[in-house]
Amino acid sequence: MSFTIKVHTASHLNLNHNHRVSNIAYCPNFIPKIRPKPFCNPNPLISRARIHKMHADRYSGAAPVIRSSLIEPDGGALVDLVVPESLRASKTSEAGSLPQAKLSKIDLEWVHVLSEGWASPLGGFMREHEYLQSLHFNSFRMKDGTVVNMSLPIVLAIDDDTKGRIGSSPHVALVGPNGDPIAILRSVEIYKHNKEERIARTWGTTAPGLPYVEEVITPAGNWLIGGDLEVLKPIKHNDGLDNYRLSPKQLRQEFDKREADAVFAFQLRNPVHNGHALLMNDTRRRLLEMGYKNPILLLHPLGGFTKADDVPLDVRMEQHSKVLEDGVLDPETTIVAIFPSPMHYAGPTEVQWHAKARINAGANFYIVGRDPAGMGHPTEKRDLYDPDHGKKVLSMAPGLEKLNILPFKVAAYDTVEKKMAFFDPTRSENFLFISGTKMRAFARSGENPPDGFMCPGGWKVLVRYYESLQAEETSQQPAVLSS
Amino acid sequence: MSFTIKVHTASHLNLNHNHRVSNIAYCPNFIPKIRPKPFCNPNPLISRARIHKMHADRYSGAAPVIRSSLIEPDGGALVDLVVPESLRASKTSEAGSLPQAKLSKIDLEWVHVLSEGWASPLGGFMREHEYLQSLHFNSFRMKDGTVVNMSLPIVLAIDDDTKGRIGSSPHVALVGPNGDPIAILRSVEIYKHNKEERIARTWGTTAPGLPYVEEVITPAGNWLIGGDLEVLKPIKHNDGLDNYRLSPKQLRQEFDKREADAVFAFQLRNPVHNGHALLMNDTRRRLLEMGYKNPILLLHPLGGFTKADDVPLDVRMEQHSKVLEDGVLDPETTIVAIFPSPMHYAGPTEVQWHAKARINAGANFYIVGRDPAGMGHPTEKRDLYDPDHGKKVLSMAPGLEKLNILPFKVAAYDTVEKKMAFFDPTRSENFLFISGTKMRAFARSGENPPDGFMCPGGWKVLVRYYESLQAEETSQQPAVLSS
Repeated sequence: MSFTIKVHTASHLNLNHNHRVSNIAYCPNFIPKIRPKPFCNPNPLISRARIHKMHADRYSGAAPVIRSSLIEPDGGALVDLVVPESLRASKTSEAGSLPQAKLSKIDLEWVHVLSEGWASPLGGFMREHEYLQSLHFNSFRMKDGTVVNMSLPIVLAIDDDTKGRIGSSPHVALVGPNGDPIAILRSVEIYKHNKEERIARTWGTTAPGLPYVEEVITPAGNWLIGGDLEVLKPIKHNDGLDNYRLSPKQLRQEFDKREADAVFAFQLRNPVHNGHALLMNDTRRRLLEMGYKNPILLLHPLGGFTKADDVPLDVRMEQHSKVLEDGVLDPETTIVAIFPSPMHYAGPTEVQWHAKARINAGANFYIVGRDPAGMGHPTEKRDLYDPDHGKKVLSMAPGLEKLNILPFKVAAYDTVEKKMAFFDPTRSENFLFISGTKMRAFARSGENPPDGFMCPGGWKVLVRYYESLQAEETSQQPAVLSS
Repeated sequence: MSFTIKVHTASHLNLNHNHRVSNIAYCPNFIPKIRPKPFCNPNPLISRARIHKMHADRYSGAAPVIRSSLIEPDGGALVDLVVPESLRASKTSEAGSLPQAKLSKIDLEWVHVLSEGWASPLGGFMREHEYLQSLHFNSFRMKDGTVVNMSLPIVLAIDDDTKGRIGSSPHVALVGPNGDPIAILRSVEIYKHNKEERIARTWGTTAPGLPYVEEVITPAGNWLIGGDLEVLKPIKHNDGLDNYRLSPKQLRQEFDKREADAVFAFQLRNPVHNGHALLMNDTRRRLLEMGYKNPILLLHPLGGFTKADDVPLDVRMEQHSKVLEDGVLDPETTIVAIFPSPMHYAGPTEVQWHAKARINAGANFYIVGRDPAGMGHPTEKRDLYDPDHGKKVLSMAPGLEKLNILPFKVAAYDTVEKKMAFFDPTRSENFLFISGTKMRAFARSGENPPDGFMCPGGWKVLVRYYESLQAEETSQQPAVLSS
């Protein structure tokens, strides 16, 4: 299945460090109308390779087990923390004899992320030396002196009672929200969970109202528990979307199968509008100009926790599907898959995680836009992050040097050309910015957005979702008694 | 003056990364009583070399101008930002024609720090790409791919009016609190000063009451201005202590003159008690055991901004002087000098700056204790930082790999042996911890601390200071009218 492809380095493409910091001047182009093709559905559930020496070799730069011809996984090897089928019964039985720590739904999302190697070379929830490096340096220094990016603390919190129950046991069973055994955490280390410091250093604010903080950190225990993770069986959501949840290994195999010589990843957590499509198609055009013969787009919506007013995953997946059916993106050169991580909304800190995980998935180009992973300040009337900081920080981030960062100019609705186009500051009066909030307001009111904002099929999906939401709200409204 | 000395690397000393993370087991020893010797006073005001290509070569890894046989300055060259005598008149005249930005007393301390190369390779107040790297990664990536540590944002804030006055001028004159021209900032870049984010990422909290925040950041303007610094003449304080303000270049020359084959730096902002002395003497003993023939101690009190209840610099310098006169430390193998930086009290983030600056001053060993650069949480009854995080973070910090970190166990008063000794947890009931607050309470009340806590000469200096403080307070109390 694997074959040799010339590795294009950043310098080869004249995309070296200095160039990467500045905007690459994209020229607006037309969105090519391509015949609709069946939605791509790569073969999921490929049997997993396992790295047996994982625990001993953690961060040791051991010989890689799974390689890509395009970009190496961080640390050289893609970690796979799912126990082999043959050991499942005995490990599950062992888990039953260990002290337990309960996982929340979002903890389970992190188990999923870790189990498939998105966070390679991280082999489990962070121990303190890993947590501190992540918090202070956004990166780990490996035994061989190389550096890998690791900007978000991937940690598991436990409360005083759980800590007491664990006592001095070196291993702990992790059980799901329903009490079912999920994993074993080996050679655990328990250390203090200083929530204030974690929040301040991750988000650059401690203002109340950060979605991940309110949902995950505030209710969490005062201890963190790190260790080596052994996941008893592959994590499945059974929500009809598991076929889209391709692991980094599966994605790498798919890129090889398609004979990709460049993979450009697009992270999103919103419906795809024609501005996104313009950007993705323009990136492909530029990669072809650079000399690549078969660039593949990884359209990679985030599938874990998102804030309450974001569009839910199933609706987004249906919308993305329509975008490909309508021919706005070419299914031949596009892979749609779900990135299983929860969302922090931590801007410049989080965008590094988004990019780093895509290295592990085999993408060697990463598209970054305005205010990635950002949101409004929870208590002040402004963006929480400077909208340009995300791409600047990403371009300078330790451990991401091997990834080609593709910053882009913002797209907006061109009221003259009546289509989404890259914003031209010399005629700013002709451009209409349609924010997520505005888009949702259109869909909610049943009003159509300007022609050319989104393909009709995709738009219908959104309208239907908001209609169902309103119907639900109406049915839940208490009856008003007339006097 | 310079000569060749074998460079001892961390691995040679069996102090590699893993060893450095753990505590080195120090054995308590007696404080050697050495005959008093005249206090060291190395020749100050040595004429300065200047790096002419500074601006063009900033972070370019240019050939070093000033080298040490023990440890290389960060970036290879010690920057010196003071304009040569021959150009002083013309530059001062030019400064008079430029738009002005006013420096506060603490800004001026940073100009001092920058001018002498303590922050090498930083050649001026940070531009945005430097600020972002400092804030997010605690380090800079240089053009050649190497990494230098840079954990504190060294920035200059300006207000809206000043920004307006500067307009599009590429160069700005920096004037002192009294309006006297101090420096020119070249090719300036003005960017937003997001105070909340700066505070959160630097201190890991945004709680009110952080001394540097209240003194410097809260009153500062909403813009930061970066650029290349040209300082018109050496910064002098004219407080009778300038002889102690040795530049990194002067310190390196002094170490060479003394034929040091190891230099171990001890940062402090408090009076030296016998616990500190125990530690410094024990470190020297250990270095001799390791095979060094002439280890020199750099006793390096911080001389810039400190919080109101810290002991003032002049009192501390007198106290340190007595400690050497009383023979608690050996003047033959000790250099006392002032580190001109202001204090952030930013714990694990700041201790990196303290260590990094000492690399530039030629120290290849750095002693780190409990809770370095820490303080009590400003609003909660606890330490702001985990007392162990400082040394852990320091041992893993990017760009500090070439520095040998010497963590030490905490010293306390041994009530059985009646002296300061390394704390022995197996007989914790015999140890008395004398905090800074307790020490100040003793001195304030005129009560003597336990015998052996501090040399009598040093203690007298403190008692006299607190007596003078009380006399001042009494004289300032409003007269109470008797009825």
